[in-house]
Amino acid sequence: MSDPRFSKDQISLFIARALETAGMPPNDAGTVADLMAEADLNGADGHGIFRLQSYIRRIQEGGINLFPNIHVEQEKSGMALVNGDNAQGHLVMKYCAERAIQKAKKSGVAWVGAHHSNHAGPAKLYAKLPLAHDMIGLYVAVGNANHLPPWGGTAMLLSTNPIAVAVPALEEPAVVLDMATTVAAYGKVKTAAQQGQEMPVGWMITKDGEPLVDPTRADEGFLLPIGGPKGSGLSLVFGLLAGVLNGAAFGRDVVDFNADFQTATNTGQFIVAIDIAAFGDANSFKRRVDDAIRAIKSSPTLPGFEEVLLPGENSFRKREDYQVNGIPLSNALHEGLDNLAENLGIKKISY
Amino acid sequence: MSDPRFSKDQISLFIARALETAGMPPNDAGTVADLMAEADLNGADGHGIFRLQSYIRRIQEGGINLFPNIHVEQEKSGMALVNGDNAQGHLVMKYCAERAIQKAKKSGVAWVGAHHSNHAGPAKLYAKLPLAHDMIGLYVAVGNANHLPPWGGTAMLLSTNPIAVAVPALEEPAVVLDMATTVAAYGKVKTAAQQGQEMPVGWMITKDGEPLVDPTRADEGFLLPIGGPKGSGLSLVFGLLAGVLNGAAFGRDVVDFNADFQTATNTGQFIVAIDIAAFGDANSFKRRVDDAIRAIKSSPTLPGFEEVLLPGENSFRKREDYQVNGIPLSNALHEGLDNLAENLGIKKISY
Repeated sequence: MSDPRFSKDQISLFIARALETAGMPPNDAGTVADLMAEADLNGADGHGIFRLQSYIRRIQEGGINLFPNIHVEQEKSGMALVNGDNAQGHLVMKYCAERAIQKAKKSGVAWVGAHHSNHAGPAKLYAKLPLAHDMIGLYVAVGNANHLPPWGGTAMLLSTNPIAVAVPALEEPAVVLDMATTVAAYGKVKTAAQQGQEMPVGWMITKDGEPLVDPTRADEGFLLPIGGPKGSGLSLVFGLLAGVLNGAAFGRDVVDFNADFQTATNTGQFIVAIDIAAFGDANSFKRRVDDAIRAIKSSPTLPGFEEVLLPGENSFRKREDYQVNGIPLSNALHEGLDNLAENLGIKKISY
Repeated sequence: MSDPRFSKDQISLFIARALETAGMPPNDAGTVADLMAEADLNGADGHGIFRLQSYIRRIQEGGINLFPNIHVEQEKSGMALVNGDNAQGHLVMKYCAERAIQKAKKSGVAWVGAHHSNHAGPAKLYAKLPLAHDMIGLYVAVGNANHLPPWGGTAMLLSTNPIAVAVPALEEPAVVLDMATTVAAYGKVKTAAQQGQEMPVGWMITKDGEPLVDPTRADEGFLLPIGGPKGSGLSLVFGLLAGVLNGAAFGRDVVDFNADFQTATNTGQFIVAIDIAAFGDANSFKRRVDDAIRAIKSSPTLPGFEEVLLPGENSFRKREDYQVNGIPLSNALHEGLDNLAENLGIKKISY
């Protein structure tokens, strides 16, 4: 039986209903719901409505400030530091992205960091916001749980700290890289556990350094960074830039948002908006990106590959499909959402 | 027999002599020589005096502009685009780094890109320049030869496009990440070939996707990116940011500087300077970086590891050693430099 499908509007309306019922002001609930449904539409299925139950729980346990004063704390022409006042992360990062875009129109490049923020969904959601302004977007976040040690160690001090970069093209879809600094994101481990599957060697190791392939034992080991010390180093410097520089949590201070729904996470993120017109003609830039994309797409393939995929291409195709045919939600997720609706006393997603 | 060692001054003076004799104006020769010797002092032994012979050859064959007009072509408060006028890359990137630092004092964060530049040595050399100003440095370059295809393909369209990030600490050495987006840098392949050693599985594959372990057959295969599609995606977006955005070479336009010593390479790089004081108190930031470093250093180790190393720590230790005991140059390199001295009619490095 294939998974039931829902329109972006159905998903967005349900999320807004749930957040509003949990106490979030309607405008904010609508903004968060739209960004979460947009994540689902882009195929970021571990970062959209999938997260609703845990977001609601954090709100109910007092872990989120429902009436925040998100504001600029420090500012110069090329940067700003935003205090998210422990708001839902989507609200903070939308504010930061808009500020970065607005500033970059004058300064050419603008870097906006945040502290006292929270989980904001998939990185690409915010890296893509500058695209509509003929800008390149770059986003980095400190993950909300430490799933790996520094390379060679066993103390859980690092997270999968993701990076997303979105670069506009002219006729081709934008290049949108969105990646964790680990071989596998932790969400993939959870999915493998749910589906009763083994993990490939290389995703995780035990504290003794042995391969760990049983995802139900994930707590006994840790994720492996890409390229060993390189991915570990990227995770560290991203953590210093998105966390420590902004006065946000890093290392031992990171609050595990899967275990603690009450303590403010003080999540750190930053977004950079780069106005292409500051460097030269935006259209000729985008034409050269088209050229690069086409050269890559026309590369002969390695044995075992049907085609060469650009970063973001899979997500783009899912979006095209989901816009027409709806967004698939797994039966388990659908059931969970029905239970959530019942607990909140709201209409189910199907209605 | 252990390798002969030379002081940084001996190396720098020899390089300056050679560059000047090849026609570079004395001031510029001194600047390039100092940066190259600094690379050697930091243990970046594939990027210091090791490159002198090929730099001299490029100068002799007319591939470098010895009397360049390095200048800002576009500028806003948060960015600049510098035209390197086909100068030796070290001169261009020093100019860019200084401009970025100067601008960041006002704007908080400044992004300076370059085109019509050339190979500039190790990435960390420039990422570290902002440190003395209590700034974070970030540097990305398009590599000067394509050594890998996009993930899943076989067309050589990407380079190892490196990134370096330098973050100052208070009492601890700065965190200095300097990494290629491939499992192994191409220089390591060359070294393995020189030493008659096999490469580990995972560094390279053949065009049929089979492991390639014979470094003398490197031309028949390509480097593997870290984390498969992730490293490939990083190399691509770094290439778009450092190359295409600056109007510099990328993809098919990249001139292989190991094969062609005459065509201008139009190398693209960028550097970002981040003034910590714009975000908050610089000293408390650096103290928190100390804390992060110490937490990492005190992590228990995995079996097989004697200690946890921070990015840049090996390089820092080499620097401490080399400052006292001199910088080791391999006998093969020493011999090559003696031949170069003879050809140029200058005093050998030992004198």
